[in-house]
Amino acid sequence: MDQRLGLPPGTVFARSGVSTRYSSTDESAAELAVRACEQALNHAGLVWDDIDCLVATSATMDQAIPFNAAMILAQAGARSRPIAAFDVGASCLSFLTGLDTISYLVEAGRYQHVMLVSADIATFSLDWRHLHLSAIFGDGAAAAIIRRSEPDESSTLLASHLQTFAEGADHCRILAGGSRYHPDRTTQSIRELAMFHMDGLKIFKLAARELPRFTQRLLDAAGLTLSDFDVVVPHQASRLAIDHLRQRLHIEKDRLVDVFERFGNQVGASLPTALHEAISGGQVQRGQRVLLIGSGAGMTLGGAALVY
Amino acid sequence: MDQRLGLPPGTVFARSGVSTRYSSTDESAAELAVRACEQALNHAGLVWDDIDCLVATSATMDQAIPFNAAMILAQAGARSRPIAAFDVGASCLSFLTGLDTISYLVEAGRYQHVMLVSADIATFSLDWRHLHLSAIFGDGAAAAIIRRSEPDESSTLLASHLQTFAEGADHCRILAGGSRYHPDRTTQSIRELAMFHMDGLKIFKLAARELPRFTQRLLDAAGLTLSDFDVVVPHQASRLAIDHLRQRLHIEKDRLVDVFERFGNQVGASLPTALHEAISGGQVQRGQRVLLIGSGAGMTLGGAALVY
Repeated sequence: MDQRLGLPPGTVFARSGVSTRYSSTDESAAELAVRACEQALNHAGLVWDDIDCLVATSATMDQAIPFNAAMILAQAGARSRPIAAFDVGASCLSFLTGLDTISYLVEAGRYQHVMLVSADIATFSLDWRHLHLSAIFGDGAAAAIIRRSEPDESSTLLASHLQTFAEGADHCRILAGGSRYHPDRTTQSIRELAMFHMDGLKIFKLAARELPRFTQRLLDAAGLTLSDFDVVVPHQASRLAIDHLRQRLHIEKDRLVDVFERFGNQVGASLPTALHEAISGGQVQRGQRVLLIGSGAGMTLGGAALVY
Repeated sequence: MDQRLGLPPGTVFARSGVSTRYSSTDESAAELAVRACEQALNHAGLVWDDIDCLVATSATMDQAIPFNAAMILAQAGARSRPIAAFDVGASCLSFLTGLDTISYLVEAGRYQHVMLVSADIATFSLDWRHLHLSAIFGDGAAAAIIRRSEPDESSTLLASHLQTFAEGADHCRILAGGSRYHPDRTTQSIRELAMFHMDGLKIFKLAARELPRFTQRLLDAAGLTLSDFDVVVPHQASRLAIDHLRQRLHIEKDRLVDVFERFGNQVGASLPTALHEAISGGQVQRGQRVLLIGSGAGMTLGGAALVY
């Protein structure tokens, strides 16, 4: 990337804290999503026909209409029966919001096996003049299959908490893509309007101000303290955000899942990718208490306390 | 509209079946949404601070990032506490999907008062060369506040059912707006890609083929027959779609809510607007059984059997 941008070797890493990230130049978000779903099915020993609901939990749209879950189902190909499909969206916290929301439907028996999948291609919309805002982003997809625990299984969602602080709605934005800045409604350059903008310092300050109180409410709901958690999986927002969260919440490095250097910020796919890496790398074991936590555009704070 | 398009008087009505529809030239979807929310608060005798979760159930995005619910919260202005906010998306069936999904969280006590709001500005993306596909659409917003019924209240959601037939994912589309046709990833005209396209006959045929079996599954889940419902509120998709549903399901005209001529197809806002009109006009009374049903891009069929 240094080479491509004509910079001295090491510049991008020094400014972004990311040494590798993935960029999808020819695959759509739906294609990435299907690959993640198929890996999840393999790991679970299930097939598509076992899934009765697909929930797309991405931060970005694949296209404006139809919704992401329909695009993913179409990409997945023919199946023997139609299933329920819809999107749950809360920018970078979509996966966490989907997990939280869908857990109630699974608990009530509405669905037996829900495929949650986040897939985002964020690298198209970056302004490379600002390395600390652009070079941190990577593309990716991650999926999880949610079902009710059997009586002999310990997995459970203990508590979740979501709060949107709309005073920060403008801190992180892509203005185009919807009805507000449609090509027929604006004379501005759609290409410019379709670029990602982030007032990093503003969003960091707002998140930092609210994080301690937010975390306490989540812990209270779970009836636990931070030391009760074996592992904390933060949204991989930025080097600064992860380091701040670790210091502010006094989490030892070996209890924190940090894949930022290897993947960057994969927006909606970031949190489930970090969880996947922690599970597949052995950092999270069955029966352990896990805290998912992060901030996203909105500005939204989200957290989930669970036993894996 | 005939005048604007240089057509003989009556042409647009003859081809679309719509005599009036609304078009928002200067207000954003979030602005329309907030006006609908405020009306819902007034009708319910509540204020914003009573709402602990806002779920945006629109068919289209206001802008690509952040999500619609954050844009609506920001538009609603300052409040004394942050609340949960996220989107539930399934194109024209987003409201029905949101009602279905959120009912489980309300039942479980996770949220006390959830504001569901659909707001869509669809009129910007129309190709006026095809009147039967363009002149049917109108802009609008509608909101509902969901809470648990008190023991002396009859309101309840009896059953819901959703199925996506992804073979029809391409029948109804706006290609631009997301990562698939981003200005930096395509050489095609973004304006052209941002136009709404619908293969009306294909989507009608697919929906017609699946509707009877879908409806039967929904009725079985509710333990009812069609004659048990006092009122049927269909998604106001098109003149053809509403008439077909009425004939196919043998619903007398006075049991069917049909506001198509007055509002056109307001995409995500269509179904809740029709329900609102039926309630405010006295066609739906407390304690009556209501069937919400429709098809949307995806292609998705959705239905909910409820007691108002």
